[in-house]
Amino acid sequence: MTASATARRTVRVELADRSYDILIGPGLIAAAGREIASRLKGRKIAVITDENVAPIYLDNFLAALKVEGIDAVSLVLPAGEKTKSFEHLISVCDSVLAARIERNDAVVALGGGVIGDLTGFAAGIARRGSRFIQVPTSLLAQVDSSVGGKTGINSPHGKNLIGVFHQPDLVLADTDVLDTLSPREFRAGYAEVAKYGLIDKPDFFAWLEQNWQAVFAGGDARIEAIATSCQAKADVVAADERENGQRALLNLGHTFGHALEAATQYDSARLVHGEGVSIGMVLAHQFSTRMNLCSPDDGKRVEKHLREVGLPTSMDEIPGGLPPAEVLMDAIAQDKKVKGGKLTFILTRGVGQSFVADDVPQSEVVAFLKEKLPK
Amino acid sequence: MTASATARRTVRVELADRSYDILIGPGLIAAAGREIASRLKGRKIAVITDENVAPIYLDNFLAALKVEGIDAVSLVLPAGEKTKSFEHLISVCDSVLAARIERNDAVVALGGGVIGDLTGFAAGIARRGSRFIQVPTSLLAQVDSSVGGKTGINSPHGKNLIGVFHQPDLVLADTDVLDTLSPREFRAGYAEVAKYGLIDKPDFFAWLEQNWQAVFAGGDARIEAIATSCQAKADVVAADERENGQRALLNLGHTFGHALEAATQYDSARLVHGEGVSIGMVLAHQFSTRMNLCSPDDGKRVEKHLREVGLPTSMDEIPGGLPPAEVLMDAIAQDKKVKGGKLTFILTRGVGQSFVADDVPQSEVVAFLKEKLPK
Repeated sequence: MTASATARRTVRVELADRSYDILIGPGLIAAAGREIASRLKGRKIAVITDENVAPIYLDNFLAALKVEGIDAVSLVLPAGEKTKSFEHLISVCDSVLAARIERNDAVVALGGGVIGDLTGFAAGIARRGSRFIQVPTSLLAQVDSSVGGKTGINSPHGKNLIGVFHQPDLVLADTDVLDTLSPREFRAGYAEVAKYGLIDKPDFFAWLEQNWQAVFAGGDARIEAIATSCQAKADVVAADERENGQRALLNLGHTFGHALEAATQYDSARLVHGEGVSIGMVLAHQFSTRMNLCSPDDGKRVEKHLREVGLPTSMDEIPGGLPPAEVLMDAIAQDKKVKGGKLTFILTRGVGQSFVADDVPQSEVVAFLKEKLPK
Repeated sequence: MTASATARRTVRVELADRSYDILIGPGLIAAAGREIASRLKGRKIAVITDENVAPIYLDNFLAALKVEGIDAVSLVLPAGEKTKSFEHLISVCDSVLAARIERNDAVVALGGGVIGDLTGFAAGIARRGSRFIQVPTSLLAQVDSSVGGKTGINSPHGKNLIGVFHQPDLVLADTDVLDTLSPREFRAGYAEVAKYGLIDKPDFFAWLEQNWQAVFAGGDARIEAIATSCQAKADVVAADERENGQRALLNLGHTFGHALEAATQYDSARLVHGEGVSIGMVLAHQFSTRMNLCSPDDGKRVEKHLREVGLPTSMDEIPGGLPPAEVLMDAIAQDKKVKGGKLTFILTRGVGQSFVADDVPQSEVVAFLKEKLPK
């Protein structure tokens, strides 16, 4: 047995007849054909990927399918958040239908969160639901977007406003691919790893404070951090698949974060999703302090750790300026987490003590943003 | 109590937490505000309709909402099958999001099958699933497409190939609206009514043979026929929501029918859906006879009744010519009812004795079509 095989971990997402495995470890792209063939009835696959990922992994992935007798077509899309559009959804659907992918065949997302969200949506609507496999190639996608079945595209009215819940049939998280990420991309994904600690796992957050350098370096600590993150998300999703309640906890830091992404026109040169979440998590702790829920020390501790790993922790660090508080508030109000005009927010009583609040006054949020925005 | 109130019927679709009522009877558009307000938590609605329906019903419908304090925006789309496209899906999504329809508000389809399928799809993907109300204004939509949660648009690769399962929260089938349908439209809807008899209700088919003139005339026989049809569909959907098995029976006549619609470019001047189904049901009986399953007398009986009500019953009656059998076969093979290359067909052992066959040889279908196509 090789070191690779011993290091592999499996996390099961329990969703009755839609349960599935997340395999985590090195060498999974090379092993993809075998893992897929043993689970899939059909023998046809459409692989959707992007211009950054294709040159590095597409040929290897297709070769791994071929040795198991699986026919594949592939479609390479532009990289970046703007690809989560109706325009590209239409071209993915067209590829899938042109390839005559049937109900027992599958659509594969080989890429990061953008490719996963877009491809999952296309798989969810092609023939009213086709089989779907995630092969996430970013840390962010491995620990967050590839797990849990949320798919979608962006609208001029806001991010992820159009989509479906469509669970994958399998997730292959090959940890070798993380070695090719830029440090900035890896850090952005790490923000979501830290999030699971901040939601309800204070011990995991403390472990990250001690071991983050090993997680960044790779090896067993990294696999451990990814598996813990996937398990945390799987538990939340199993309890509340369609976000009627506690699943909203996964949005810790995201309400502010999405507003900042919208305010920077989803321009990754200025801000990527994980960076928005990092700033958003710090803001969520500070806002909770303002609401007399959370000690200021907890906010400082969160800020210190995220800054230590190299993530931005305040709105001042976003290049190019931000709109006034009222405009950010408008972006927040158009986000999904609004019911009957009242604001739903993830607040916290301290590290690992987050909760869903559904009666946050808009005026408090605006006043808080005015205080925190760069002067 | 008025005659209207006594005549009203309710059919319940039993789908656990997605169960809903179908109300059938006169005056339901005028009563829409009350029926919706008593079931909906939110107070905002987006109404999607088309250029044919809007001048007759939109103002009345909006007025009925207004008296109950429900705010509504409306969008009027071109009428016809070509509206089931990505282009119009995008504009419906945009209207719904621009109106800030939230999870407790609703999207309403006021129209026939095209508007219902398109609007239901948009409701199913806006905010990953919004509440949805069907107000079907054609007989076809009342007895078929508004019930059961299949939504979708057409693709260059085939009809309804892109969509989701998204159940409505309420269906209001106002039988008064049927008086404004053209005889041709009414007959096309009647093909689906007859289908429920042919699937597994021989007594209902015999009742229709006796009472079809009363059904066409309106009044209690018409309401009875619609309620029986909705109940038949509700029973099938409750047993197999996502068409893993017996729901496919609802496709009796549709495999041939869809191929004929594709072959006539969905041009309603040449063929509308119900007419394709009528010809398709006759062909399904004749093909079953060829396969030694069904007495030729049953096919003749079906043909006689459908011809009597004024529906087309053979491919000769489609104006403008048809492509060769191989091209029709290709359209059939791209239809959804294909698994691992084998053809799934609804065949029959006689009136009211349909069944799902999943091993129909393609060569037999081609030979049959060659025989039946106009020379």
